[in-house]
Amino acid sequence: MNTIDTILNHRSIRKYKPDPVPENVLNDMLNAGIRASNTGNMQVYSMIVTRDEALRKQLCGFHFGQKMVEQAPVHITFCADINRFNKWCRMRKAEPGYDNLLWFVNAAIDALLASQNVCVAAEAHGLGICYLGTATYNADKIIELLDIPHGVIPVAAIVAGYPDDNPPLTDRLPMEAVVHYEKYQDYSNEAISALYAERESQEFTKNLLIENNVETLAQVFTERRYATKDNVFFSEKYLGLLKKQGFLNHGE
Amino acid sequence: MNTIDTILNHRSIRKYKPDPVPENVLNDMLNAGIRASNTGNMQVYSMIVTRDEALRKQLCGFHFGQKMVEQAPVHITFCADINRFNKWCRMRKAEPGYDNLLWFVNAAIDALLASQNVCVAAEAHGLGICYLGTATYNADKIIELLDIPHGVIPVAAIVAGYPDDNPPLTDRLPMEAVVHYEKYQDYSNEAISALYAERESQEFTKNLLIENNVETLAQVFTERRYATKDNVFFSEKYLGLLKKQGFLNHGE
Repeated sequence: MNTIDTILNHRSIRKYKPDPVPENVLNDMLNAGIRASNTGNMQVYSMIVTRDEALRKQLCGFHFGQKMVEQAPVHITFCADINRFNKWCRMRKAEPGYDNLLWFVNAAIDALLASQNVCVAAEAHGLGICYLGTATYNADKIIELLDIPHGVIPVAAIVAGYPDDNPPLTDRLPMEAVVHYEKYQDYSNEAISALYAERESQEFTKNLLIENNVETLAQVFTERRYATKDNVFFSEKYLGLLKKQGFLNHGE
Repeated sequence: MNTIDTILNHRSIRKYKPDPVPENVLNDMLNAGIRASNTGNMQVYSMIVTRDEALRKQLCGFHFGQKMVEQAPVHITFCADINRFNKWCRMRKAEPGYDNLLWFVNAAIDALLASQNVCVAAEAHGLGICYLGTATYNADKIIELLDIPHGVIPVAAIVAGYPDDNPPLTDRLPMEAVVHYEKYQDYSNEAISALYAERESQEFTKNLLIENNVETLAQVFTERRYATKDNVFFSEKYLGLLKKQGFLNHGE
C-alpha cells in the first residue's frame, strides 16, 4: 500500500490476536521512529518496548483496565527524555540547562513525532495500533513500574499487534473545522452548529445520549468522559510529576 | 515509494524552489493530518496554512530569520486548540473543563500526531519539509500575527515545498541509545561514551569544535546552540503564554 493510503486507512484497533510481532517488523517500526525530525538532532526522547506478559498485565491496570493492553503483544511507552543528554554533557565538561518547560515541550515533540512514525510504519506492516491517552493520567505508576529515572517522563503510549477486528473509519469533523487559511478564522455560533451538525444527527449519537442519560452530545464529554474534576485531578498529578522528574526547574 | 521507505528517507529540507504546492497535494497532506489518532475524537487541534508572502516574511522574522521560511511556499502552524470544542460545549448546555495542563498535553499530542502525518504525506508527494522549533520560542508573536484566539497555542510549525537541495541523511545515535526493552535501562558512563563515540570522532564534529571555539561537542549545545539563559527565558515566556491562552486555569 502506498504511503497516503496507509495513513488514510488508519483506524485504532482495540482487539488483538495473540501472535507476536516479528523482530524485523518491530525493528522497522523503531527505525521509522528514529528517522523522525527531532530537536537539534539531540534525540531527547526514548521508547520503552514492553512485551513481557506480567508487565503488560500491570500496565493494563494503569490504563484503566482496557483489555487490549493485556491482549496486544507489544506496549511502547514514548518518553520526553533529557536524562541521556544530561549524562553525556556532564561527562564532557558541559553544564546542561534543559530542566525546564521549554525542554519538556521540545522533548515531548521529539517523542510524539517518533511515536507517529512508529504507528504509520506498524500499519504499513499490517499491524494495528491504538494510542493510550491514559499514559499521562497514570504516568507516575508507569514510571515506577518501568524504572524510569529523573529527567524522563511518559507522554504517550501505544499498543501494537495483529488486528482481531476490522472497525469502520471513525468519522471526523469537516476539514474546515481544523484547517484555517492564512490566519486563524474564529468560529461564529452558526459555523459551530454547521460543523457539528452531521455528527449530532447520527443514529449513533442518539443512542449515546440515551445510554449516558444526557441531553446533548457535548454533555457526553463534559459530564461523562472527561469531567472537570478528573481533568483537574490529572492536571495536578502530571504537574507534580513534571516537577519531580526535573522539567520545571530553572537551570540554576 | 512504499511507506517505510518514505519514512526512512526523511531529511529536513532547508532550501526550496519557488514552485507552489498544488491544491490537491496540500489537501492530501491536510487529510493525512486529520486521519491521525486524536484524543477522544474531540480533535482539539488546528492547522493554520499560511501561503501569503507578506505573512510568511513576518513569520520568517519570528523563526530567527531562517531564509527557508520566506522561500518555502507553505507554512503550517500546528496548534493545541480547545477553543472550538469549548464554543460547541457552551452552545450545547455543557460546561467544558479543559482549561488545564492535562488538556494542553492532550491537545499538543493531537496537534503533533497530525503534524507528523502531514509531513510524511508531503514527502510521499515529493515535497520537502522542515520543522521549526522556533514556533514555541516566539509563539506570542505568531499568535498576534495570525489572530490566534484564547484557548489556542502554537506547538509546532513546518515549512513545505519542492526541495532545492538534496542533503545526505542526518546521522542518528545507535538504536540502543533511544530504545529500551521491557523497562528503562539507565546508562553507565561507559555506555554513554560508547553511544556518542562515532559522532564525537567525525571530521564534521572536529570542525564544529574549531568553529565554536569549544573543547567538546556537548559544549556546542550547552554554550552555543541551547544555552541555559535562553532556555530559561523561553520557558518563562511559554509558561506565561500557556496561562494567558487559558491552559493553566483550574476548571472554573
